Parts: sequence; structure tokens; C-alpha cells
Amino acid sequence: MDFQQILNTLQSDLKGFETKGKVADYIPELRKVSPDKFGMSLTTLDHKTYSFGDALEKFSIQSISKVFTLALAEKYGDEIWQRVGVEPSGNPFNSLMQLEQDKGIPRNPFINAGAIVVADILLSLFENPEKELLNFIKQLTNDDNIRIHEKVALSEKLTGYRNVALVNYMKSLGNIKNDPTEVIGFYFRQCAIEMSCEQLSKAFLIFVDDGKVHGKQILNELYVRRINALMQTCGFYDEAGEFSFKVGLPGKSGVGGGIVAVHPAVYSVAVWSPILNKKGNSEKGMKALEKLTDLTGLSIFL
Amino acid sequence: MDFQQILNTLQSDLKGFETKGKVADYIPELRKVSPDKFGMSLTTLDHKTYSFGDALEKFSIQSISKVFTLALAEKYGDEIWQRVGVEPSGNPFNSLMQLEQDKGIPRNPFINAGAIVVADILLSLFENPEKELLNFIKQLTNDDNIRIHEKVALSEKLTGYRNVALVNYMKSLGNIKNDPTEVIGFYFRQCAIEMSCEQLSKAFLIFVDDGKVHGKQILNELYVRRINALMQTCGFYDEAGEFSFKVGLPGKSGVGGGIVAVHPAVYSVAVWSPILNKKGNSEKGMKALEKLTDLTGLSIFL
Amino acid sequence: MDFQQILNTLQSDLKGFETKGKVADYIPELRKVSPDKFGMSLTTLDHKTYSFGDALEKFSIQSISKVFTLALAEKYGDEIWQRVGVEPSGNPFNSLMQLEQDKGIPRNPFINAGAIVVADILLSLFENPEKELLNFIKQLTNDDNIRIHEKVALSEKLTGYRNVALVNYMKSLGNIKNDPTEVIGFYFRQCAIEMSCEQLSKAFLIFVDDGKVHGKQILNELYVRRINALMQTCGFYDEAGEFSFKVGLPGKSGVGGGIVAVHPAVYSVAVWSPILNKKGNSEKGMKALEKLTDLTGLSIFL
Amino acid sequence: MDFQQILNTLQSDLKGFETKGKVADYIPELRKVSPDKFGMSLTTLDHKTYSFGDALEKFSIQSISKVFTLALAEKYGDEIWQRVGVEPSGNPFNSLMQLEQDKGIPRNPFINAGAIVVADILLSLFENPEKELLNFIKQLTNDDNIRIHEKVALSEKLTGYRNVALVNYMKSLGNIKNDPTEVIGFYFRQCAIEMSCEQLSKAFLIFVDDGKVHGKQILNELYVRRINALMQTCGFYDEAGEFSFKVGLPGKSGVGGGIVAVHPAVYSVAVWSPILNKKGNSEKGMKALEKLTDLTGLSIFL
Repeated sequence: MDFQQILNTLQSDLKGFETKGKVADYIPELRKVSPDKFGMSLTTLDHKTYSFGDALEKFSIQSISKVFTLALAEKYGDEIWQRVGVEPSGNPFNSLMQLEQDKGIPRNPFINAGAIVVADILLSLFENPEKELLNFIKQLTNDDNIRIHEKVALSEKLTGYRNVALVNYMKSLGNIKNDPTEVIGFYFRQCAIEMSCEQLSKAFLIFVDDGKVHGKQILNELYVRRINALMQTCGFYDEAGEFSFKVGLPGKSGVGGGIVAVHPAVYSVAVWSPILNKKGNSEKGMKALEKLTDLTGLSIFL
Repeated sequence: MDFQQILNTLQSDLKGFETKGKVADYIPELRKVSPDKFGMSLTTLDHKTYSFGDALEKFSIQSISKVFTLALAEKYGDEIWQRVGVEPSGNPFNSLMQLEQDKGIPRNPFINAGAIVVADILLSLFENPEKELLNFIKQLTNDDNIRIHEKVALSEKLTGYRNVALVNYMKSLGNIKNDPTEVIGFYFRQCAIEMSCEQLSKAFLIFVDDGKVHGKQILNELYVRRINALMQTCGFYDEAGEFSFKVGLPGKSGVGGGIVAVHPAVYSVAVWSPILNKKGNSEKGMKALEKLTDLTGLSIFL
Repeated sequence: MDFQQILNTLQSDLKGFETKGKVADYIPELRKVSPDKFGMSLTTLDHKTYSFGDALEKFSIQSISKVFTLALAEKYGDEIWQRVGVEPSGNPFNSLMQLEQDKGIPRNPFINAGAIVVADILLSLFENPEKELLNFIKQLTNDDNIRIHEKVALSEKLTGYRNVALVNYMKSLGNIKNDPTEVIGFYFRQCAIEMSCEQLSKAFLIFVDDGKVHGKQILNELYVRRINALMQTCGFYDEAGEFSFKVGLPGKSGVGGGIVAVHPAVYSVAVWSPILNKKGNSEKGMKALEKLTDLTGLSIFL
Repeated sequence: MDFQQILNTLQSDLKGFETKGKVADYIPELRKVSPDKFGMSLTTLDHKTYSFGDALEKFSIQSISKVFTLALAEKYGDEIWQRVGVEPSGNPFNSLMQLEQDKGIPRNPFINAGAIVVADILLSLFENPEKELLNFIKQLTNDDNIRIHEKVALSEKLTGYRNVALVNYMKSLGNIKNDPTEVIGFYFRQCAIEMSCEQLSKAFLIFVDDGKVHGKQILNELYVRRINALMQTCGFYDEAGEFSFKVGLPGKSGVGGGIVAVHPAVYSVAVWSPILNKKGNSEKGMKALEKLTDLTGLSIFL
């Protein structure tokens, strides 16, 4: 399959695509991004990468970071699944209520509450979790140029009251072991990591290749399968079912406008376009991945 | 791959498997089933069927019927997705609250509320929806011996207060078009259909084969893909994520103890064991499918 | 205190009062009532009745009937408080969810779910609960001219899907002992009782006079005190707190536009104006009672 | 009425009263209080105070402080009712969910969320709200010996994660104007105020006497009436209805084991016993107030 040609067709097909949403505005720093940015990058199992547009430009990966932290938390062992569930979260409004019902156990590691528990786990596992996380991503991408956007991190810290509420609420219910301020501080920083589509598609090849990076087993196969299953059922907030139908691939989106998806044993793909739909997922990014499934004829459901 | 040998290994591996749950007891008639029943049947894309145990014995398919009615509702067109969602439902307790929030639109067609809306749609589409449904299943299985267990149907009717509540509640919110008593009457009957593992694995081959039955296109390809995606994200009540991880296949369970799963383009499989776990899914059936994935090495996530 | 003069002042003060709401429309038959109707009647402890306007015209008492049925359920004894709570219900949307949480025990006897449980209790207590209820009201008012408006009763039955949902839901949770259809049938009929302001103010004197009717002890004093306390905290749906502040009297409203209130040991009062505010309480009726408190200087909080 | 004799009878009647609950343990410092403490103090409209037992010993007033802060917030004007509701909160579990539904507007000023909004208002109104509050209470009691228990305040700060969650959550929804850390810091300190039963019964006389302190109008009459109405409907967490029935007086409890109640125009009363029932209200204190109503024959409902 000529992936470069498919990407080119896709790019040209989406030229006239009109978005209705807007750039994420809840973090002031994110508002500054040009809404016209559009890039895509696909990496196949044999390590070939195909790209177009702004594929080399870095953007705030935001919730996509949750997949990296979950991967890094593997060392914590099976106990992780006592502290965070594996089920989709249902509608968004009940997140806090659900926590109350379930005694502080978030439904899954990809809603904010769940990712905050994973951040807490990394604080327990590592002396310097931030350094550990950046090193892990550098290893996955084989690229040392991975860093945190300080202004975005600060902007999150200054405005992320809801996440501060979540971590304190879970602390009160016993599911946060470290100091809530430290936990949320680390969480705000992981969300502010900047990466390009190329870096992301390369980094996610580990989920295509059974946990291997350039042939070396970095993550356990079963753990990778679980992460893929979770990306399938929980990767798109309240739009997981919709994405599952239209794209049919496990994936994860972030409010920075990035989306990553994987076709196990075939390819990983990253797309970036900052305009979000009402559910908080990149509008053009969703369309691009839908088109990719159509053009390749590859989905896990057919 | 020698599927018969795999099934034999699986059967022998599960000989000592001890269940902790119990047979469904909320419908009095279902309590009468022997808890030791165990059968399995797998049908490959080339129409070969492999079985063991009680694979030929009929049991109450219950919620598995929701997949057939959803398939049959295809004629209703895209409007169906205005009346029922495609997202997982989150925890069970919020079903009624969720309906209130979403103005009577159930989260997906596989929770009871959603299947009742689909039943209402069939009442609008067909003069005699029950006959239509039975004929459809007969066509899928190429078997005329498909019928409703009258005592189970009556038992559901006499005890199904919660479902009566659901249909009336949705009627009050405007999402039921026909008489609630007729709708729920049809719904109770669809749940009381009896089929064997062999019949079920044959019937579900349509979801393996892009909507075709013996080469003839019966359902639209895209519609089949959507049904598969929905089985993946919503087929196991509150255990969809767990099943997705452990088995990695789209599927649907019923409180009669049956589970059906499909590996698109490869095979469909049905298993039956009446003892249910706390989430209402067949305990041994779940284990059997997990083992099948292990033994075949086939999952959609690796 | 010259109550007739106070009522006259009140009537004249409210001449220019402009309502913004509309007549209840969820029951088709109720829509037919003229929105300009306005009447009021006050009965003092010494059995003197003062009135103005449409005080003699009958209207559908609707939820005001819940106070009569609760009073009549006294014979059931303290067990009633195992089947229905005594706490305010919080916001309306959670009624169904609350039932799920509390295993079918409604928060209080004045929300629909609670009144339906009380109806079920009356079906258990009496051979012919409808006749018993009408006789009870006739005794309270010393007036034989109390009856059910058949068209309204039928209209409720034909459109009351939500209440049918409630009774079936509670049946599924074990808190309805009789046949749900019979229970809800009786409930629809109790709501369709017609009474005038004069009849209502006379009937509610029992709650002013410690359970006595013309000197004869009909209800236990403590039971009357509980009913008064419940009217105070739960009598006005989601507006109980507001009413408590502005009027400061125990009371009960109905979507027919009637409101009844009592000042223990002083007077009972009934007002009728069909235009409802957003919370479902008579707009002008609420204002009239607020004015009454101002003009008399009597409230239980000062 | 000989109140001292009534109190004496009450004290002797409750000698054998056995409590089943335990002292509040969520704040470590509160655990240290002796469970056997029991005191009561009643102040009549004519400024006579009657007491028994540990009526002069100071304890942590906790949530009783919410009445003082609400009173002090009077200067904020009617806008306060745009930021906090006046309706009972329904069951406890939905507090967070309710906030989400109502866009950060707590149901009433006596649930924690509501009191935190009131604390925020005091931070906006006063340079030094803590000093202002202490001075206000000193004025009400005519007693300079009112202070904050520093260890309790610190203990709250170190363990009050849930309240930190609440203030941040409301900040994210726009209903907190000041820095969340400052707001919650002040809130923790107000809860740690120490007072005796005598001081409390004297302080609450303002709600008995139309807003007057020793003849001087300190609070607006209407505002006092609203506070009384709110104490009636919302003063006892999830037990407001129960208290309303059994005691029939507006009141407010705190997890320190104190309860204050007022009979408008007659008396104010404070009772203290640290053992709490499941709803978080003083077990013996509730019983004592119930007995007081029985012995005096005074309730606002009869």
C-alpha cells in the first residue's frame, strides 16, 4: 500500500473541509495557536514514516500524554487495576458523582481523574517522574528533542481548578497516596509536553509492535494489548463509540488538537488540527482518520 | 488452524473451572436451567462449524436478541441514531438518570432502554415484527427451527416491571412512538427466543462476512461495521472494557448464559454456560472466550 | 383581626399582578381552564370562613390530594415511614436516581413516587380506597358534594406515562405491594378530585386544630404535627425553601393552580389561580399567600 | 413557664440515654473530646439564661458557624441569593453532582459548598473577615472571650481535602471570586471557633428577637426570617425533615456535637454532646431538643 499517496489524497480531499468548532480556550496559552494548522504523520511496522503539512511542528500533546504515563506505570504491577478501572466512563457530567459512588476509583486511566491517579503512581514509583517520563518518550521516539512548554504548564497551573478539585477529592477518598499539590503539579506538566505528529506516530509504534521498540521488548505484550483495548473503548471522552464506528481504531485525543491512533501490527498515525468539536476532539483530525480508514480499507472491525 | 482441536483443548482445560456465581434468577422460568450446561460452537468464514458439549441444546438467548433486532432495524435508516446513541453507558445505576439527562435517548442499542427503542422501531416498520424477526434469524441460520419459549416470554411479562418502567418513561419523554404495552410485549418475546450455540454461531457469520449470508449481501457493510463497533464498546453491560481487554473481540452476552463473539473476516463463536458473574455475564463463557483468544492468538488488538 | 378586610385588601392589591407562566398543559384536560380564575378562602380555628373571587368554583386539586391520602394512611401505623421518607427531595431530576439509590423508598410522601406508595398503602388498607377517600374529605368539609372529574381522571390515565414508569420501577424494587396498574389507576383518580377554595380551607382546618374536626379527634396529634412538618419542608416541590421564606407556613400546591396553607392554631387558607410558575406552583397563589403573611404579620418564623 | 425546672427534668430523664454513635473522627483533633460531655443552655426573649451540665465548657462549633457567617454576609445584599440557593439539598451524595447541574450554585448556605461561597463573600466584603466575624459574635454574646482553637484549625487544614475539592470546583465554575486557598483557609478557621452552650444560646437570641440585640436592630427583620426559614429546612444535613418533625424548630448542628435551635419570639437553646448519629448530628442533643419540645409543649407546628 502506498501510504504517501494515500496521505496526499487525504490532504487534498480535506482542503475544503470546514470546521464549526473552535480552538481550546480553557487554557489561555492554548488559545494562541493558529487554527489553520494541519499536519499528519503515519509510521508503519517497518519504521517508515509518511507525512504532510505541519507534521514537524510541535504542539501541546495534552491528554495524549496519558497513554505514555499509563505505559510507564507498568512497573506498578496489577495493583494499578485496583486503583483505576477499565470501563468507559459514560457521560461526562457524572465523573465526580461516579467517583463518589466508586469510592474514588476512576472509571479508566484516560479520564482526568484516572490519569491523575496514574500520575500519583508515577510519583510513588520514581524519584523524578518528570525526567523518567521525558526519557521514556525520548526512547520511544529515538529523539532527544522532547520537552515541556513552560508557559502552557504555568497556564494549566493557574487555571486548572477543576483538576485541583479532582485530586483533592480523590485524596479525601483515599486513592491518592502522595501530596495532592505535588501530584497535580506533575500532571499539569505532563499535559504540557510538546511533540510533533512525526514524533507521536513514531512513539506510538510500540503499541503497533507488541511492546517492542526497534526489536527490543520495552513493555509486556499483554500490557500493550490492554492499553490498546482501553484506547479503543475510552480514548475519546464521550465520543469513543462514535470514533470506534467511524474510524475503528484504538486511539487517543488531546485538547491541543492532536489525535493518535494505532492499527495493531500495521501502523501508527498522528494528526493535528487545533479546532475542536463539542466533545473536545479535533474536528478535522477525526475526519482525517475516518478518511484514512476509508482510503486504506483497514479497520479492526472489517 | 485446527479449530476443532483448539475447541477440544479448551473444553478439557475448563473441566476443573469452578464458578462462583449463580443462574439468572430474576426471571423465574430461567432458574430451571441446569447450571452444568456447557457448549460451544465456532463457525469460520468458509462456513465450517466446530462444536463441543451442549452446542446443540437450545437456551434463552435473551439480550443476544438485541443484535438481531438492531440488524433488522437497518431499514429505518440513519434516523435510528437520532433515537439511540452509540456510546458506552458507564455504570449501570445511571441508566434512568442518563435517560432524563438525554431526553429519553438511550446511550446505545444494547442497554435495555436502547433495545426497547429498537423494538419500537420494528413495530413502526413491520406489520408483524415478531414474524419478521423469526424469519430473519431463520434466514441467517438457514434453519427453520427457531422459536419463542412461551413460558419464558410469559415469565418476563409477569415480572419485568423495570422494563415496563423504562418504556413508559421513554414514552413520557417522547422517544416511543407506539403503544408502550405493545412495545414491551414484543420486547419480552424477542428476549425469549431459543437458539443453540450452533444456530447462534451460524447466525452471527453475517457480522464476520461484511453483511453477506452465503454470498448474498443482506446488510449494508457500513451498518455491519457499526454493529461490530457497538458490540465491542457496549456488548457486555458494565464489563465491556474488561471483555475488550481479556478477549479483544466484539461480542454480546445474555442473562440466559449465552455469549456470541465475532472476529471480523475470520470466525463467529457462541458459548453457553448458565452461571453468571456479578455483572450478569456467563462466568465460564467469558473464560472460554478468553482461552480461545489465547489458544488462537487472534484478537483485534494485537 | 378582620380577615375579610385583609382578604379584600389582598384581592385589590393583586388586581394588577401580571403572571408570566402558563396553565398546566401536561394533562390535556387541564388546559381548558380559564387562566383568569382567582379565588381565595380562609377558615379560622373558630370555623369562620372568609372568601373572595372564584372561591366557590371547583378545580382539580391534583397534588393537594396527597395530603388527604397521607392523612388517611394513618391507620397503617409507623411502618409507613419505612416505606416513604420524611426528607426534602432536593432537585427534581434526581427523583428516579434517588429511588435507585434508596432501593425504592421515595424521599417523602409529597413527591409523586411517595404519593404513589401512599396510594398503594390505601389499596392494602381498604376494600374501596376511592370511596374511603371521598368519604374522608366529605367528613372534613362537612360537605357531600365532593367528586372526581371523570374527564380529568381519564386524561391523566391516557398521558401519565411517567407515573406509570414510577410505579413499575418501585414495584421492581419491592416497594409496591399491589398490582401496579391498580395502584396508578387509583392515584390518577385521587388527583382528579375537584374541590373549591372554600371546601379546601374547611378541609384543612384539621391540621390547624390538632387533628380535630368540630371538636372530635379524627387524627392523632403527633401525626398531624408530622404532616404539618412535611408540608413545611416538602410541600412545594423544588420551591419549598422559597415558600418557607416568603410565606413561612406549611402548605401544599397542585398543578391545577391550587395552594393550601395552614397556620397551626390560627387558620387554614386555600387560594386558586391556574397560571403556574416554572417550578409548577401557582404564580399568583404564591404571591397571594406572601401578601397574606405580610398583611397579617403572622408567620411561624417571626 | 419554669425553664430551669424543665431543663432539670430533661437532664434527669436523659441520664440513662444510651448512644450508639461515636465522636466525629474525620478531624483528628476532634477525636480527643470526652464522649460523656453533656450540657445545655436556654435563653429567653427577656435575656434570662438557664443551664445545666457542661454548659460553660467550650467546644468546636463547626457548622454552627455557618449561621454567623450568613448573618454577617447581610451587607452583600440580595445578590447573595444569586450565588447560593435556599432549597434543601436532598441526599448528601449528590452535592458535587448538584453543583455541576446548577453551575456551581450550592443549594443552600448550610451545606459545606454554600458556606464556602458565603466565606468567599466575606472575603470580598471585609479587609479582615476573621476579625470581623469574631467581633460580630462577641457583640451577639456580649462576651469578649470568643476565639479560634488553633490546633483544630490546623487539623482541618491538614485533612480537609474534600473541602479543598469543593472550593476549587466552584472556582472552576465561576462562583468563587477570591483565591481558593484563602477562601478555604478562612473557612477552616471559622469552623474551629470555640464557644460554650451559654455563649451560643445568648448569641442566637438575635434570631428569636427579630434581629435585635439588647433592643438594638443589628440585622434586618426579613433577613432574620430567611435565616430562620433556612435553619428550618436545611439546618440538619440529611435529617432536616426528621428534626422538623421531632423538634419542630429552626436549628443548626455541628460535628463538634453542638446543636442550636430557636423558637421565634420565645427562646434560643444550645445543647452539646459529642457522640454523633449516622447523619452527623449529636445523638443525645437531638433527643434533648425533642424532649424540650415535649416538655414545653412548644413547637412551630402545633
